[in-house]
Formats: sequence, structure tokens, C-alpha cells
Amino acid sequence: MKYGFGIDLGGTTVKIAYFDESGAMLDNWEIPTVTENGGARILPDIAASIRQYLDGRGIPDSAILGLGIGVPGAVNAKGVVNRCVNLGWGVFDITRQLRELTGFPVKAGNDANVAALGEFWKGGGQGCENMVFVTLGTGVGGGIIVEGRLLHGAHGSGAEIGHLVLNREETVPCNCGKYGCAEQYCSATGIVRLAKLHLAGTQAPSVLRQGKALTCKDIFDAGKAGDREALAILDQVYAYLGLLLANVCSTVDPEVVVIGGGVSKAGDVLLDGIAPYFRKYVFHAASGARFALASLGNDAGAYGAFKLALDAFGN
Amino acid sequence: MKYGFGIDLGGTTVKIAYFDESGAMLDNWEIPTVTENGGARILPDIAASIRQYLDGRGIPDSAILGLGIGVPGAVNAKGVVNRCVNLGWGVFDITRQLRELTGFPVKAGNDANVAALGEFWKGGGQGCENMVFVTLGTGVGGGIIVEGRLLHGAHGSGAEIGHLVLNREETVPCNCGKYGCAEQYCSATGIVRLAKLHLAGTQAPSVLRQGKALTCKDIFDAGKAGDREALAILDQVYAYLGLLLANVCSTVDPEVVVIGGGVSKAGDVLLDGIAPYFRKYVFHAASGARFALASLGNDAGAYGAFKLALDAFGN
Repeated sequence: MKYGFGIDLGGTTVKIAYFDESGAMLDNWEIPTVTENGGARILPDIAASIRQYLDGRGIPDSAILGLGIGVPGAVNAKGVVNRCVNLGWGVFDITRQLRELTGFPVKAGNDANVAALGEFWKGGGQGCENMVFVTLGTGVGGGIIVEGRLLHGAHGSGAEIGHLVLNREETVPCNCGKYGCAEQYCSATGIVRLAKLHLAGTQAPSVLRQGKALTCKDIFDAGKAGDREALAILDQVYAYLGLLLANVCSTVDPEVVVIGGGVSKAGDVLLDGIAPYFRKYVFHAASGARFALASLGNDAGAYGAFKLALDAFGN
Repeated sequence: MKYGFGIDLGGTTVKIAYFDESGAMLDNWEIPTVTENGGARILPDIAASIRQYLDGRGIPDSAILGLGIGVPGAVNAKGVVNRCVNLGWGVFDITRQLRELTGFPVKAGNDANVAALGEFWKGGGQGCENMVFVTLGTGVGGGIIVEGRLLHGAHGSGAEIGHLVLNREETVPCNCGKYGCAEQYCSATGIVRLAKLHLAGTQAPSVLRQGKALTCKDIFDAGKAGDREALAILDQVYAYLGLLLANVCSTVDPEVVVIGGGVSKAGDVLLDGIAPYFRKYVFHAASGARFALASLGNDAGAYGAFKLALDAFGN
């Protein structure tokens, strides 16, 4: 039996998990992400933590098949990072650097893509060959699996489906600088933004007209309790999500669409809300895609990162 | 040296081409597509034509590595056709039937997908690993190559990018039954439709206000001659195409977008028109995709069909 590591590199912490080649997560821990000096310490810190773990347990290097890492930015199929703004990173070959620091072979991918691979392997997409993953959190990320393999993209930015333009009339810019991106309507932030716009445009009473700052959860809770304005807001969100996922499915035609991220905690009400809009907008031959909620939570990235390494360096 | 056949099955004719394994097209001919009786004669006719060709030249079966076929409908990666309305076909395993009829191994794909593979191999996408192909003809078709492999889709309808919904406000239905599909604005038919709508909405003089039926070529010719109304119509087309291709590129992140079909005969003026809208709508990390015109014309399907067989059955 061989072993390996899956690393989920985030803007504030690095999650490191130790797996056996069957995919059992045997251990996991976190270290802080030190972003000073252009993120120069990040990879040495990861290498030191892995070395300490192996030495402390007397695990020989020969037992390790390799390691995989998910990075919050664009990474192409050859392992070249193309800028991670929130880590301070520019353009460099992360697989080579981390290999030189650890002595182990390395595979790297974009964090949302890698989380998609995790859900494909051990989560909501198990048993499928073709999958679309969308993560609805502070932003909207995505990942696409084609015949069992992750779509990296030529510039390492495959499945940036949060930045499909859904509304050419939008006048407020997205974080990316464009106008009308899916992220502006379907992320947790975007849903709250839509809610504020909606409430400002009507005098109708609503439990959402409260003193404290509105959250995405408040809106779903109010909707579940039957608040008419909350339902009207969510209907807009479902229409945008249905259009987004229909256009992505007409493009890549998956068996399953897996939805993760904080917004997916709303559960089946979210899937039920999206369904009629999805059917309205999707090409008929691609309409057979089923919808599922992500099941690995914050571990999806570590699972997917290890799977990258397992596919490349396992037997 | 081994040899094989690439077959481009259309609604009125079947193009059959004979290749050597280097990809040189040694011969090609056409036979009529007989769609009576649910298209029952189509595959036997193809098999008979191939048999006659081989016997007539004394080519032994052992010289043939296999054959590939592009079909005007959905075909999944396992070779199951999922209806071809204009051939009268339902759901069946085309690779098995054609193998039994010919004695040769068979691979099958959707016609636009297969044409994409041809352009990838020997046309506008040569030398790339990741490509998006769009064919702007009577309809709008597409094909996607991911790391050198054709994206078939779970239901055989990958890259149906003509049916991405670009305009939720559209009140006229698309041929597919939905509203606001790219095909309604970017196909030759769609461009003429937009032109008629535009001319009906203004009193401005235009060379397009002629007696005879308007064609897509008339509109591009008038634009090249500086006709203001033609330019306004084309600007709408470019905006839709730019949005369509931006959303597809933000999803699959290719190195190159290859544009084929009758509308692509407009040439560089089309690419130049799309470019600013593409840059406006595409996610920055995917903006490096370059644009190219298809170069194989009507042979793209035969090349791609043979390439399917070569990848599966060649050395």
C-alpha cells in the first residue's frame, strides 16, 4: 500500500491531508498561509510540515506516491501557476518547486477544479464519467470532469463559470471587472445584493426588513417561512442559476451537476428552485443531467488534490 | 501502411473518403442518403459502397484499420445514436451495426463534433491541444477538443453551443423549441432574420432594401461597402457571437477558437467584428484564446471521422 498527500491551499490556511491509495483520509491538519513577501514562505512551510509529519511517524519516503495541491488561481495542465492575487504569487512552475522542496512528485490544479475532482471521486458525483461542479460561496467557482478527467483549460482557467455573462444590461461591475457575471447574482454576496435591490424597489412588508445585516441564510430561511419578498428574490436567483447551468450543460453535456459551497446548505429547496428554469433553458439532448448536492464539504479540495496525484503517480 | 475511411453522413448525401494513416485523403466520393423507411438503407448503402471500392481495387480487408462516421444528431462516446430527426433514426448502436455490415471496427460521433476533430487535426486548430469549433451555417453547431480528445458529452450532445440562451427576452421560438438561442442570431438564417427586423424598424435607406430575397452574403457585402444599416445589423451579430464565444471560452478555456460554416466565408471582417465583444465578455484568464477561420471546408467531417477511427484503432 502506498500513501500520499492532498493539499488545499487557501488564502488564510493550508489544509493538508494524508491518504492511502484507496482514498481513505487517514489524517489531516492545517497550517497558516503566510502571504507576506509575495507568498515566498508558502511552499517551504508546506514542505516542512509534510517532512515533520513523515519523520515524526517514521514513514519512509518510499511509501509516498506523491502529492497534489489545489491553488486559488489559474493553474494549467503542466502545473504552471498563472497568478494568485490573494497569495501574492506571479507566474511559476509550482509542481517543480514543490517537487524540489519535498522530493516527491507533484500535481497541481485550480482549487475549484480540484474540489470538483474530489466530489467526482468520493462525493456527489461518484459513479459518473462526466460532471459539472459549481460552488456557490463568497464567489462562484466551477469544475468540469470530461470522461473521468479534469478539464484544466489551456490557460489554467477552465470552468470559470462564475464569470459567464448572463446579463448584458448590468451597470454594476463584478469583482473581475466585467458586467453581468453569474457571480453577481448567484454567489452568497450576489444573492444579498439582489435582495437589497429588490427590497429597495418595493414597499411590501418582509421579515427581511430587519435592523441587522442581511445574510444569504436569512433570505433562504425567510423563503422557507413563506415570506413573499424573499420568494421573489430567490426566484430571480433560481432563474440566473438555471440559465447558467443550462448554458454550461448545453456546452459540456454532463451526467450530473453537483452544487456545493455555502449557498448549497439551503438543500433541496435550491435544487427544486433551479429545476424549472434549467429545463426551460437547456438544450433538450442535454436535459438528462441530474442535480446533486456536494457531500464532502470543506474536504472536497483535499480529496481532489490527492486524486490528482493518485491519477498521475499511482498504479 | 494501414488505411481507413472517414464518412460524413448528411441529410441528402453521404461523403466517403479513403485515407492512409498519415492522414492523406487518397480518394473521396458521394452517395445519396436514402431516408425512406426510417433511414433503414443508409448503413447498408454505405457498407456496399465501401465493399465495392475495396473489391474494385483489390485492397485486402487486412489493410483497413477501421472507419469513422459523423452523424447529424446526438451520438454518445459509446457509439449510441440518440435520434437523428432528418434521417428518420431513433436510438441504436451505430458502431455495432456498421461493424456487422462491413466487418471493420467503427467509431461514431456527432457531425459538428467530428468536423471539429477534423479542423483540430488538419485544419485551423493544428498544433493545439484545446480547441473550440463553431460552425455558422443554416444552424449553429459546435465541437470541443479537450487535451487532444473530442468532448462527446454524456448524452452525445456535447458542444451544442448553438443552443446556449443569450436573450431571455426573445419571443420568437428557435427550431429547438426554446427562446433566445445563439442560433437565432448567429446562423446564416438568424442573421437574415435580424436584418429583416432591423430594416422593418427604421426608415433609413440601405442597399439591403432590394426586391429579391436577402441572403447573409448580401448583408456582409453591404457592410464591406459601408452601408450603415448593414453595419448596424452586423454589429448586433458580432455582439451575440462575442458573448456566445466568451461564455464558451470562460467554460472550457481553449487555445484557439476555429470558426467555420458558410458565414465564415465573410473572412477576417467577421473575426475583427467579434474581437471587441469577445474581450468585453470573456473572463480575463481565458482571454488568450486566438481566433482562426476553418480551413478544410466541407472536408472537415471526413477528416474528423477518419481521425476518430485512427485514434481508436491505429497504432
